[in-house]
Amino acid sequence: MGHPTDGRAGDRGVVVVGGGLVGRVTAWRAAQRGLSVTLVEPDPVADPAGARAASTVAAGMLTPATEAVFGEEPLMELGVRSAAMYADFVTELEEASGLGVGHRATGTLLVAFDRDDLAVLTELHELHQRLGIATERLTSRGCRRLEPMLAPSVRGGLLAPDDHSVDPRRLLRALAVAGERAGVTEIAGRAEEVLAPGPDGTRLGVRLDDGRLLPADQAVLAAGCWGDAVGVPEPVVPPLRPVKGQLLRARVPAGEPPIVGRTVRGLVRGFPTYLVPRADGEVVIGATQEELGHDTSLTAGGLWQVLRDARELVPGVSELEITETCVGLRPGSPDNEPLLGPTRVPGLHLAAGHFRHGVLLTPVTGEVMARALTTGVLPEYAQRFAADRVFGGGGTTKRKQWE
Amino acid sequence: MGHPTDGRAGDRGVVVVGGGLVGRVTAWRAAQRGLSVTLVEPDPVADPAGARAASTVAAGMLTPATEAVFGEEPLMELGVRSAAMYADFVTELEEASGLGVGHRATGTLLVAFDRDDLAVLTELHELHQRLGIATERLTSRGCRRLEPMLAPSVRGGLLAPDDHSVDPRRLLRALAVAGERAGVTEIAGRAEEVLAPGPDGTRLGVRLDDGRLLPADQAVLAAGCWGDAVGVPEPVVPPLRPVKGQLLRARVPAGEPPIVGRTVRGLVRGFPTYLVPRADGEVVIGATQEELGHDTSLTAGGLWQVLRDARELVPGVSELEITETCVGLRPGSPDNEPLLGPTRVPGLHLAAGHFRHGVLLTPVTGEVMARALTTGVLPEYAQRFAADRVFGGGGTTKRKQWE
Repeated sequence: MGHPTDGRAGDRGVVVVGGGLVGRVTAWRAAQRGLSVTLVEPDPVADPAGARAASTVAAGMLTPATEAVFGEEPLMELGVRSAAMYADFVTELEEASGLGVGHRATGTLLVAFDRDDLAVLTELHELHQRLGIATERLTSRGCRRLEPMLAPSVRGGLLAPDDHSVDPRRLLRALAVAGERAGVTEIAGRAEEVLAPGPDGTRLGVRLDDGRLLPADQAVLAAGCWGDAVGVPEPVVPPLRPVKGQLLRARVPAGEPPIVGRTVRGLVRGFPTYLVPRADGEVVIGATQEELGHDTSLTAGGLWQVLRDARELVPGVSELEITETCVGLRPGSPDNEPLLGPTRVPGLHLAAGHFRHGVLLTPVTGEVMARALTTGVLPEYAQRFAADRVFGGGGTTKRKQWE
Repeated sequence: MGHPTDGRAGDRGVVVVGGGLVGRVTAWRAAQRGLSVTLVEPDPVADPAGARAASTVAAGMLTPATEAVFGEEPLMELGVRSAAMYADFVTELEEASGLGVGHRATGTLLVAFDRDDLAVLTELHELHQRLGIATERLTSRGCRRLEPMLAPSVRGGLLAPDDHSVDPRRLLRALAVAGERAGVTEIAGRAEEVLAPGPDGTRLGVRLDDGRLLPADQAVLAAGCWGDAVGVPEPVVPPLRPVKGQLLRARVPAGEPPIVGRTVRGLVRGFPTYLVPRADGEVVIGATQEELGHDTSLTAGGLWQVLRDARELVPGVSELEITETCVGLRPGSPDNEPLLGPTRVPGLHLAAGHFRHGVLLTPVTGEVMARALTTGVLPEYAQRFAADRVFGGGGTTKRKQWE
C-alpha cells in the first residue's frame, strides 16, 4: 500500500491547510525538499487588516529569554533553538523571496514596576543563570540610560541581548513568495473536511467548502485556532483554545525620533505589556490575553488596558498616532505547547498550537515539519511536542507569567 | 444693478460651500423659500467614515442646559431656542426626506465625581434657576436609580429633561435628501476660491479646484474649519480655530441591554465626558478638546483619556465593543460663537464657527440663514451672531467648562 506516513511523498503530494506563518513555512520547507505542495488559505496574504491569521496580528517578538516561564523549560529550549536559527533563516528567506522581513537584532529590555514585579524579574534572572542564558540585571538608571523614554518609576530591568524581533506581516509575505518560487501551489479557498484513507479504498484528501476535492498523500492541518472548523475523520486534533489578544499599531509623529530603540517589555503591577519598534517608525503595543472563544471584537476595556500599561511603561506613548487596532486569536493547545507531526490518521499531520510562540517558532517548525513529511518521524529534540502525545487531566491550562 | 444683498435672489441663485449640517440646512431652507440653490461638497454624504465634516463625527447632543457656561448666556439662549424648534424640525424633515434621524427625547443626566465637580454642578443649577431652565438636582442614589450602570462613586447629578439627542449622520443624510427634493443641486467638488463682484463688471462666483466656475447672486461659506482653504476676496472670514475631538463609537454585545437609557454626561475630576446612546444599541463616547491646527490623527493619549473617563463614569463601558474611532475638527470662531449672515463682500455670507454646537444649532441656523438670504438681514435674536461683527482682543478664547 505505502501509506504516506512511511515517509515517501507520492504523486499527489502534500496539502497544507492554513496560510499563516506555520502553514507557509511548512509548505516552503517541504517544497524545498522535493515534495509537491498545495496550500489552502481563504484570506489574501497582502491584506493583513482583513486576515484572521494570528500571524498578521502578532507583534513579532523573538524573545525566548524574556518569555521564559518556570516549569516550561522544554518549550523555552525549543524557543532558544529557533531563535538561534533566525539569522540564517532570515538571510535564506530574504534571498529566496527578494523581500525584507524587518529582522532587528537589537535585543530586549524587560523592566519591572513595583516590588512584586521586581521579584518576578529577579527569579527570572536566576532561571537564566541556571540555564546558561545570557541576560544582564540593570538598575532603574541603567534601564533609562538604554531607553530614555522609560518612566522614571521603573524599578529595575533585565537586558536580553539575544531577544530580537521581526515583522510578522513581512515574514508572511516573504514566505508566500519563497513558497511560490519553490513550487508551492496556492489555492484561495476554505478547507471544510479532511477525508481519511479507508478500507473501501478511499484516499486521503481535503475537501473545500466549494466542493473541490484535493487528493493528497499527506495533509497538514495548520489553521491555528480556526482549525476546529475543519472536519477530521477521527478526534485526532486536541481542542485548541483561542486566546484573544487585543493590541494596536502606532507610529511617532512625522519627524520625531523613535520612542524606543529596542523591544521593551514591562511587568506593570502584574500586567505584562510591550512595545516593539520597527525601523520605519511603527510601534506595536500590546496585548491582552482573554479566553472568550472565537470572539474577535475590539473592546473598550481591552484597548484601555493596553493603553494604560503602555503609558505607565513609556509615558510618551500618549503622543503616538494610532494607525491600527488589531484583535487576534492565539491557538493554545491543552498544555500550551505546539502539536507537531503525524497523527493517528495515516498521512494527516498537525502543525498547530503555537500559542504565543508562532513567530519565534517559525524556523524550527519548518525544520520539524519537513522532517516529519519526508521521514515520518520527528527529530529527537521535538519528540516532546509530538501531535499524538497524550494529555494528562484533559486540557488543564498552565498559567504563564510572561504572557 | 441689484446686488444680491438687496434680498432678491437672481437667476443664478445661491451657491453653498460645504455639505455639513450647517451647509445642508441652509441649502434646504433657502430652496424651500424659492431660491435656486447649488451645494458644493467633496465628500459623499453616505460615507461618514471617510468624511471630514464635523457633522459626521459629532455625538449629537442637543443639550443647551448641560452645556451652559457662565458668561455665555446669549449663546445658551440661541441653543435653547434651537432645541425648542427640534421636535417640529425633525417632524418636517423626516416627512420631507422619508428618512428617520434618530431623535430621542429622553433627557440628559449630568453627574459629578468629586467635590470640585459637584461645586461646578451646583453653580450650574443656580444658573438654570436664574434663567428659568427646568433642571432637577439628584443625589448619588437618585442618579443611579435613573441609570443603574453609573459608578457608585458618583457624588450627585442634575437631570435636564429637555436636553435630548439626535443622530447627526442620519440628520445629514435626511437633509441631503430633503434638499434634493426641494430642488438643491449638488456638485461633488472642492471650492477653491470665492470671486468678488468688482467695478470691472466681475460677478460673484465660486471657482472649484477643477476650474469650473459657478456664478452666483449669493454665496454661503459653510465649510467649518476647512473653510480657510477657500480663498476669499477680502479678509471677511475671521480665523476659525480647529478644535480637535477624538471619540469613539461602540455597542453593547449582542443580546445585552443598553448601557445607559439617556445621554449621560459627567465631570470626572474636571474632565468632561459623555455617553450618548442610540436606539440601535450604538453608544457614542467622547471627547477630547485639543487645539492642534488641522491635525486629525488618532492618538494613544486621546483615546486613553476618553476611555479612562468613560470607564470612571460607567464601569460597564469596558464590555462595549468598539466599532469606530473618530477624529473631527470643531470650528471655533474667535469668540466661540457662530458667524451668521452677510459679510462686507456683497453677496457673500458666512454660516460658520458653530464650534461644539453645530448639531444643536442646525434648526435655528436654517431659519437665520434663510432670512439672511431672502431679506439681507438677520432676525433680531441672531444679530449678536452677525458674521461681520467686530471681535475684541483679536482672537481671545474663552474657556468653557462643559466642553
